[in-house]
Amino acid sequence: MLTDADVERWLREDVGHHDVTNDVPGETSGRLVANESGVAAGVDAASAVFDYLDATGTERVADGTAVEPGDALLRVAGPAQAVLRGERVAVNVAAHASGVATRTDAAVAAAREVDDDVRVAATRKTTPGLRGVEKRAVAAAGGDTHRLDLSHMVMVKDNHVAELGLTEAIERFRERASFATGVEVEVEGPDAAARAAAAGADVVLLDNMAPPETTAAAERVAAADGDALTEASGGITVETVPDYAATGVDVISMGGLTHSAPALDLSFRTGSDG
Amino acid sequence: MLTDADVERWLREDVGHHDVTNDVPGETSGRLVANESGVAAGVDAASAVFDYLDATGTERVADGTAVEPGDALLRVAGPAQAVLRGERVAVNVAAHASGVATRTDAAVAAAREVDDDVRVAATRKTTPGLRGVEKRAVAAAGGDTHRLDLSHMVMVKDNHVAELGLTEAIERFRERASFATGVEVEVEGPDAAARAAAAGADVVLLDNMAPPETTAAAERVAAADGDALTEASGGITVETVPDYAATGVDVISMGGLTHSAPALDLSFRTGSDG
Amino acid sequence: MLTDADVERWLREDVGHHDVTNDVPGETSGRLVANESGVAAGVDAASAVFDYLDATGTERVADGTAVEPGDALLRVAGPAQAVLRGERVAVNVAAHASGVATRTDAAVAAAREVDDDVRVAATRKTTPGLRGVEKRAVAAAGGDTHRLDLSHMVMVKDNHVAELGLTEAIERFRERASFATGVEVEVEGPDAAARAAAAGADVVLLDNMAPPETTAAAERVAAADGDALTEASGGITVETVPDYAATGVDVISMGGLTHSAPALDLSFRTGSDG
Amino acid sequence: MLTDADVERWLREDVGHHDVTNDVPGETSGRLVANESGVAAGVDAASAVFDYLDATGTERVADGTAVEPGDALLRVAGPAQAVLRGERVAVNVAAHASGVATRTDAAVAAAREVDDDVRVAATRKTTPGLRGVEKRAVAAAGGDTHRLDLSHMVMVKDNHVAELGLTEAIERFRERASFATGVEVEVEGPDAAARAAAAGADVVLLDNMAPPETTAAAERVAAADGDALTEASGGITVETVPDYAATGVDVISMGGLTHSAPALDLSFRTGSDG
Amino acid sequence: MLTDADVERWLREDVGHHDVTNDVPGETSGRLVANESGVAAGVDAASAVFDYLDATGTERVADGTAVEPGDALLRVAGPAQAVLRGERVAVNVAAHASGVATRTDAAVAAAREVDDDVRVAATRKTTPGLRGVEKRAVAAAGGDTHRLDLSHMVMVKDNHVAELGLTEAIERFRERASFATGVEVEVEGPDAAARAAAAGADVVLLDNMAPPETTAAAERVAAADGDALTEASGGITVETVPDYAATGVDVISMGGLTHSAPALDLSFRTGSDG
Amino acid sequence: MLTDADVERWLREDVGHHDVTNDVPGETSGRLVANESGVAAGVDAASAVFDYLDATGTERVADGTAVEPGDALLRVAGPAQAVLRGERVAVNVAAHASGVATRTDAAVAAAREVDDDVRVAATRKTTPGLRGVEKRAVAAAGGDTHRLDLSHMVMVKDNHVAELGLTEAIERFRERASFATGVEVEVEGPDAAARAAAAGADVVLLDNMAPPETTAAAERVAAADGDALTEASGGITVETVPDYAATGVDVISMGGLTHSAPALDLSFRTGSDG
Repeated sequence: MLTDADVERWLREDVGHHDVTNDVPGETSGRLVANESGVAAGVDAASAVFDYLDATGTERVADGTAVEPGDALLRVAGPAQAVLRGERVAVNVAAHASGVATRTDAAVAAAREVDDDVRVAATRKTTPGLRGVEKRAVAAAGGDTHRLDLSHMVMVKDNHVAELGLTEAIERFRERASFATGVEVEVEGPDAAARAAAAGADVVLLDNMAPPETTAAAERVAAADGDALTEASGGITVETVPDYAATGVDVISMGGLTHSAPALDLSFRTGSDG
Repeated sequence: MLTDADVERWLREDVGHHDVTNDVPGETSGRLVANESGVAAGVDAASAVFDYLDATGTERVADGTAVEPGDALLRVAGPAQAVLRGERVAVNVAAHASGVATRTDAAVAAAREVDDDVRVAATRKTTPGLRGVEKRAVAAAGGDTHRLDLSHMVMVKDNHVAELGLTEAIERFRERASFATGVEVEVEGPDAAARAAAAGADVVLLDNMAPPETTAAAERVAAADGDALTEASGGITVETVPDYAATGVDVISMGGLTHSAPALDLSFRTGSDG
Repeated sequence: MLTDADVERWLREDVGHHDVTNDVPGETSGRLVANESGVAAGVDAASAVFDYLDATGTERVADGTAVEPGDALLRVAGPAQAVLRGERVAVNVAAHASGVATRTDAAVAAAREVDDDVRVAATRKTTPGLRGVEKRAVAAAGGDTHRLDLSHMVMVKDNHVAELGLTEAIERFRERASFATGVEVEVEGPDAAARAAAAGADVVLLDNMAPPETTAAAERVAAADGDALTEASGGITVETVPDYAATGVDVISMGGLTHSAPALDLSFRTGSDG
Repeated sequence: MLTDADVERWLREDVGHHDVTNDVPGETSGRLVANESGVAAGVDAASAVFDYLDATGTERVADGTAVEPGDALLRVAGPAQAVLRGERVAVNVAAHASGVATRTDAAVAAAREVDDDVRVAATRKTTPGLRGVEKRAVAAAGGDTHRLDLSHMVMVKDNHVAELGLTEAIERFRERASFATGVEVEVEGPDAAARAAAAGADVVLLDNMAPPETTAAAERVAAADGDALTEASGGITVETVPDYAATGVDVISMGGLTHSAPALDLSFRTGSDG
Repeated sequence: MLTDADVERWLREDVGHHDVTNDVPGETSGRLVANESGVAAGVDAASAVFDYLDATGTERVADGTAVEPGDALLRVAGPAQAVLRGERVAVNVAAHASGVATRTDAAVAAAREVDDDVRVAATRKTTPGLRGVEKRAVAAAGGDTHRLDLSHMVMVKDNHVAELGLTEAIERFRERASFATGVEVEVEGPDAAARAAAAGADVVLLDNMAPPETTAAAERVAAADGDALTEASGGITVETVPDYAATGVDVISMGGLTHSAPALDLSFRTGSDG
Repeated sequence: MLTDADVERWLREDVGHHDVTNDVPGETSGRLVANESGVAAGVDAASAVFDYLDATGTERVADGTAVEPGDALLRVAGPAQAVLRGERVAVNVAAHASGVATRTDAAVAAAREVDDDVRVAATRKTTPGLRGVEKRAVAAAGGDTHRLDLSHMVMVKDNHVAELGLTEAIERFRERASFATGVEVEVEGPDAAARAAAAGADVVLLDNMAPPETTAAAERVAAADGDALTEASGGITVETVPDYAATGVDVISMGGLTHSAPALDLSFRTGSDG
């Protein structure tokens, strides 16, 4: 969840000790506006910035809303110093989150052209300090948050398997983790995928495989355990996502949704609008 | 400066309450490796992550170093749980900062082909919570940090001029701000640029002008006050930066250096390397 | 994860502004000792307290270790002021966590007499500020942490069902939550239990049912969906846990493991021991 | 005092990054209700939780109020997401504090049957992070908070006496501590108790003595210095408190009031009540 | 900027765990009053203290206002406990800031008798934790904040010059710092002052020179570079500030404005005033 | 106690986002040196600043040590960037604390010329954020910390007496506060002082009385209750402290020890010293 401490940190780093620029009297209003098409997200965070400064949000679109140039995401009113002081941080957080949402939306749309059910998921490759903001932006745009932190789902990796063997590694983590915590196993080929499913993985992560190998692995998993999910991962982009959507996997995860999405172009305009 | 509290926040959001995955005994070592060419940054932050967890950094490259695929940015050793627990956050922060540095480097190189002295600068359009990390990444790659926060330099904007008149607005802020604080004036055309320079601006911000108009404005400023700097800003990209470098401005600022640079592809590899 | 900020807060609230009592020169050593039989937990947290104060832990038992009166859980050495200043907080956290572990151990043992596989789980009814410490204590004693926070697993409750209908409620949350996030449905009778399993619940929470009704519900769930887990909950104690273990449910959850376990009697003894 | 940072930490650890469960529109109301008899405490903390989330407390009982099953401790109204998101943390803190208050009330009542003036006090054996919440719960139920932190009152212990001698130890701490800070001396028998009182202790702590020895020590202290207070401590329970109340000591302190009181059974019910 | 976290820390250190003194019911009002003549500052911080506690400020003077004995700086109303609990911290911060403002005002007045334009500036010798409060108090009284932190302006010191030579030191820092960041050079005599100006310093710091040497240095700087500013620093007091104002320097900086200004005598009076 | 979070906050406010000045390679050493005579305090805090930055303190004087010009309070060594970056904050905190200690020492010396036993005490009029640093500086110089926070000792004030009557006010607070918490009563004349002592005050605060009236009040208190302490307070300075020491009061409290003591002139010198 977003906290006051987050907002405070963002403002403190931007304002400094003596902000002369925004030392203006009176009241004003303004709006956060899209300069290009995309999907809005982080609007609650932008709103929280103004709220911390005692300016009031009067209207806002829901996260996940498609916006066109000129559309207002949020309107605020209050003391001029508060509105002006908050605008840069509010734009920064909303532009970043909306960038994530917009790219997620594009990836989901690309995948859906091929498969109606496949999930397009983010990863733990998020920007430090913004895990929640980015994961919620992904969700708002129809993506899947994937595991939210290390404690959310166990990931059995190469080194675990090397040390313990596949079956025992799964067994050990299954025992240590809660029944509420899924177990995913990372594999590097169709054979290992089948073995992981047979050994009881909830999800089999098909890492860095080309689409044909991914298809083969997904089939082997389905044959081994009809309930196990499959996830394709590793360098997948908006351009290549349809190829993976066609492989029959359940989930396609893309680090680039969060770590490399360009910001959506937003700006803040003070004063009344026509 | 980077603080323990920053690192703590990044780790806490990634680890959660019960991280079974990395609950392994013994010692291990590993290295942060580049998977593509670029410029390293955020290595000190990555190192601080491991340091917080009581793993030890043994070698690292300086921020600003050019790296090729396979190059190690940082080597660490320590308790396996510490090394494994820190790797994702360390990669995330270094990949983000290195992405900023890499794009800055590209922009600087593009500008330098045209003009040896022009500065390529970041803006206040940074990712919330990472102002310092991003500004230092820009500097490491040869870019200019521009003002670090609102208190660093006064920016006289449209609305100030509309309310007070140009000369009085500059005068008022000059009086309120310290002698240590420069005054920059945002203008939208060559005439206003000349007036701003004549009125005593330290820097004249040529906002959203095409290159030819920028050239004209820069000349007008030089004629009005030989000491005033000029800055071009507004939607400038790595592709268009040479056109602005040719205009004679002193500074070209690009929000995209920080808000839209894709992460540099880095990964963490445990164990000894050949 | 436990952070320095946690330790700092615990120490600050105990020490105050001018601690004369522990203002003694020189070095000392000491040990955290059990005064009654039980299961150790929170030893890492106790160790972190001394570490923050620059005293050094020299030996410690693993969380989950059974201890007898006189057994040392942790030995430390360092500046006398550091050792003395840390001892109360270290005892407080370890005694609390060990109390949770000891009660968990008793509940697990009671359940295991009846059923080898049933899991005894904690709930979100934890002491504010100690979620992680308590959950890890439960795990160390062989219990199941259950969901670690609201984001870990979706819980479909009465009011959701009332508003949306069972099937649609499950459907909606399934869609909004990640594939990595399980969906549990709270029901109040065998019929609803069967419907929840049929509608796709990962876990069916049998809330406040007596053992016979619980047995019936577990059977209905098994018939409806062989993969769905069943969880019994509501006022279950160490005394009644065997009755629930005999019902065939997969999980028995007990708020009392965390919110009402008496502290294990520990004390800190300075100086060398024979 | 309770701070926003405390509430924020409690909520953050319970909510996580993406709470789908409570993502519901509209307004709702609810109440915090007792499921068993006891003494309410921590109601202000529960109220602060909702307040942080922008739900409004409309009515509440004072800490220290006796409650019966069905009684409401607090009523709140506001956005459904805020009310639902706050309920678990609010219940957890109030149930914990009310558990402390209820046990304190029982101990005070047991003591008062024997002696009208004896004080039943808590110790520094509190739950880390909840020092203030627990101490205020003790006070609300008629107990005595005892010293709030190490800086509140000096405690002269065995090791101090061993090193410096009784008289000099008291003298030294008296000199170093403020006139506003009392000096208590821990002793292990009637003789030492008399010597401590004669040497100027404000309070003599009779540690781990059986009731008859406690009576003897209290008499010796009274003979040595009529103004010195006596405190009995060490493994005293609600069952044995009357025996100590009969010894003539001024204070009976019980670590179990805070570290081992079971939570009072409270729950949160949404919607209007009849 | 002042944050809630600052106010929280100030209150927490003053209130402790169980504040009985101010545990009074009902509503009250009060005012922060000057007991001596001076210049008000920190009124916003005092107001924020009451605001955090949910008492309301009803009227206040602007920072920088001259006050006479009996004048109210701030009026508040609200729950008695909130008003009483906040008063000491509110007085402490406003008395401290007003002390800084009052001394600044005296220094500015003394300087202005000799020179209308000279700036009287604070330094980085501020009270830890109160950088912003003190700098804003200086500005409110007509003083100059000087650089707000290390990143605001580069200071080239003896050791830099010793290592690199004057010209190269300036060059190197000019290159590393932003165009938005001035470069000041510390010198110890008129010759070095002239060299620094010639080498491109924005500001030349004339450190620990007597007034005649300062005059000479200022003239040398003016001759070398008409745009370079000069700053006199080192043990200057309100008594000696006119001597330095007569030297022709642009800035006179005084650490004593912030580190040694006695508090202005303020008190808080509850209840209505005639 | 001093925490890492305090040091972090002090450094963060001084360093900013991009400190070019201290970006120097290699190792260095330095010392914190007195430029005038006084009493050292805050040396532990200065040391903690360097420690946070990973520079090492090698030698230091104890708080309370008298220092002469040229004396080193602390020596440190480590990475040049760490040493240089820490020096300003280290000087600021030690100079402030040493100023408090130096003034306390002067007040204690002045009082001791008249009365060997009278205590010279600080008040709650401390600098926000530095309560502990200042109180410990007072104690180091032989002063009395007085109550450390609102919870340490109850202060019965005018408004309490007006509302409840003297006897009942004392009674009520005695009942609500712990036996470990003293009760002080503020009075404005000898008659009230006698009544307060008779009513059971532990300490009688003689507020704003001239010395003769103070003498009379102290005598009346002694006659009413030989154990009650008396404290003189209100505008007492180093100059007037002997007059109050001659009145026979037990404690003389002076807000000016903490809120108006000028900093002791300290500086930091890098490199080896002869």
